[in-house]
Amino acid sequence: MKLATLRNNRPDGQLVVLSADSTRFVSATRIAPTLQAALDDWTAHAPALSALAAQLDAGAIAGQVFDPAQALAPLPRAYQWIDGSGYLNHLERVRTLKGSKDEELQSTRPLLYQGGSDSLLAPTDPIRVTDPDLALDFEAEAAVIIGPVPMGATKAQASSAIRLVTVCNDISLRRLVADDLQNGFGFFHAKPSTSFAPIVATPESLGTAWRDNRLHLPVRIEVNGNLYGQPNAGTDMHFDFADLIVEAARTRPLAAGTIIGGGTISNSHDETLPIKRDGIGFACIAEARTVEKLKYGRARTPFLKPGDVIRIGALSPNGQSTFGDMVQTVTLV
Amino acid sequence: MKLATLRNNRPDGQLVVLSADSTRFVSATRIAPTLQAALDDWTAHAPALSALAAQLDAGAIAGQVFDPAQALAPLPRAYQWIDGSGYLNHLERVRTLKGSKDEELQSTRPLLYQGGSDSLLAPTDPIRVTDPDLALDFEAEAAVIIGPVPMGATKAQASSAIRLVTVCNDISLRRLVADDLQNGFGFFHAKPSTSFAPIVATPESLGTAWRDNRLHLPVRIEVNGNLYGQPNAGTDMHFDFADLIVEAARTRPLAAGTIIGGGTISNSHDETLPIKRDGIGFACIAEARTVEKLKYGRARTPFLKPGDVIRIGALSPNGQSTFGDMVQTVTLV
Repeated sequence: MKLATLRNNRPDGQLVVLSADSTRFVSATRIAPTLQAALDDWTAHAPALSALAAQLDAGAIAGQVFDPAQALAPLPRAYQWIDGSGYLNHLERVRTLKGSKDEELQSTRPLLYQGGSDSLLAPTDPIRVTDPDLALDFEAEAAVIIGPVPMGATKAQASSAIRLVTVCNDISLRRLVADDLQNGFGFFHAKPSTSFAPIVATPESLGTAWRDNRLHLPVRIEVNGNLYGQPNAGTDMHFDFADLIVEAARTRPLAAGTIIGGGTISNSHDETLPIKRDGIGFACIAEARTVEKLKYGRARTPFLKPGDVIRIGALSPNGQSTFGDMVQTVTLV
Repeated sequence: MKLATLRNNRPDGQLVVLSADSTRFVSATRIAPTLQAALDDWTAHAPALSALAAQLDAGAIAGQVFDPAQALAPLPRAYQWIDGSGYLNHLERVRTLKGSKDEELQSTRPLLYQGGSDSLLAPTDPIRVTDPDLALDFEAEAAVIIGPVPMGATKAQASSAIRLVTVCNDISLRRLVADDLQNGFGFFHAKPSTSFAPIVATPESLGTAWRDNRLHLPVRIEVNGNLYGQPNAGTDMHFDFADLIVEAARTRPLAAGTIIGGGTISNSHDETLPIKRDGIGFACIAEARTVEKLKYGRARTPFLKPGDVIRIGALSPNGQSTFGDMVQTVTLV
């Protein structure tokens, strides 16, 4: 089952059920007005939503044409957005960045940070910045939305709490990362609103692309139409989503509708940009710059600037964009 | 106007309007079902809620007896909980704690951290811990709930966005603070769910107790019935709430219903515990222990342990608890 949230001039938008091929939708408001409402009582609502999807796929309901430009983030505002560090490659590559404390990084427990969740960006929203010199970067990630998880949850409890899967862009202001790390209080200023793909899918609906609590799909990133990276989210993910949830629930319960990010996708390789058609590339600029510094003595890839267009989406084996693409333009305000 | 959220077996509870003396309430669900719904359209809803409060105070509506034990946190789950550091005394006192990076602390911009807001504790909820040895501490704070604030807001915009005022307990696991600071990713594990007083009040309703974007009331803390501290939240607050909001909105907008904490209340003095009736004391144990170490060579005050009861509330000049008290028992689960 695939779901999306459409604009309706309300902060939480309107829940819709999509056809399996993501081309058509039908309103789900008679079951649950919003995705959060569906998640609040998932056991009751999921079967009804699934039945509606089956009707849409069978042609019993005609539905309407799905336009991703009408989609908000699946949860346009969420009660919690936690970003984990599933990929040790990413941390190893950026640890040399000025101000990073990742030298003490251990591989036994994942790092997590609490992100702002009060305004999550729609897949076609502009990326608004007030200063063009903050070293604007993207971070392409897989993410899950979960049901309630008790404090001290086991890995089995964590795994079974995963309700929905998608991809997101954890937008980062690299110039502010060092300050935030220095303060030790978390990435408060360096991490403005995160963007989300228009579609969320249940793990079951992803077939073999969802296994071992990981999304086994390449996530393709283009900057101004040029391929930037296509690392596989299931490769080199040291801590899987259940590990991240267990760690997040160490000292507190997690409420339904909590979003967990897997961290910047990062596959092990030593390529530099520009990547070839079959290359892997990177899911953020900071990693590319670090590898370039090591290879060439200086970083070559610039950070994003106003006017740049960044496109991110997960690719199914048939070449379809599994969750729809985020297509966003950097805009100076 | 004073508002509260009562239990109704739904995650967001039910919004009620209180009488000025906090003894009676009337349901506000015909205006807005929840506090978040009221905040989403405050301009439309606030006058209607205020009119209802006037009817209750005039006796035109009898109302029902308000029982704080039936109250949830005013926002039982919120889209954002940001805790600031308004009081430099607090940071100066705890900067000597192991692992703290606060040596580089500057007084020109306040520190902020992003707290978990998916499950905020009711004023009478137990404080549940899975391990009795995590150095459980309280942090008594003033807090405000705001309307929408644009990215890059001015201080005037920030000040006018303050909708409601209350007090909270930013529960802290001191033994995990050093690890969290070391990671640099924020207080993820050291800050489990925060507790809130049962009542929120508009700034106007607080009279002279709300001025200069500060709450000028003593906040009284008792541990197991013994007075622990009663610092004034309006004294020595270096960064006021508008300053904290401006800093929070530097790189991103803030949505309606964002809660901003003022940080652990801390007045300048060199007393140690136990405090006398007219003493000031401390609003967290960590500060008391630091002062004790300096004076006596060792910390004397223990952290909270299972069975301990912590009571926190702001005191009006007439001796009333302005927002109602939090009365919570530490419980090992």
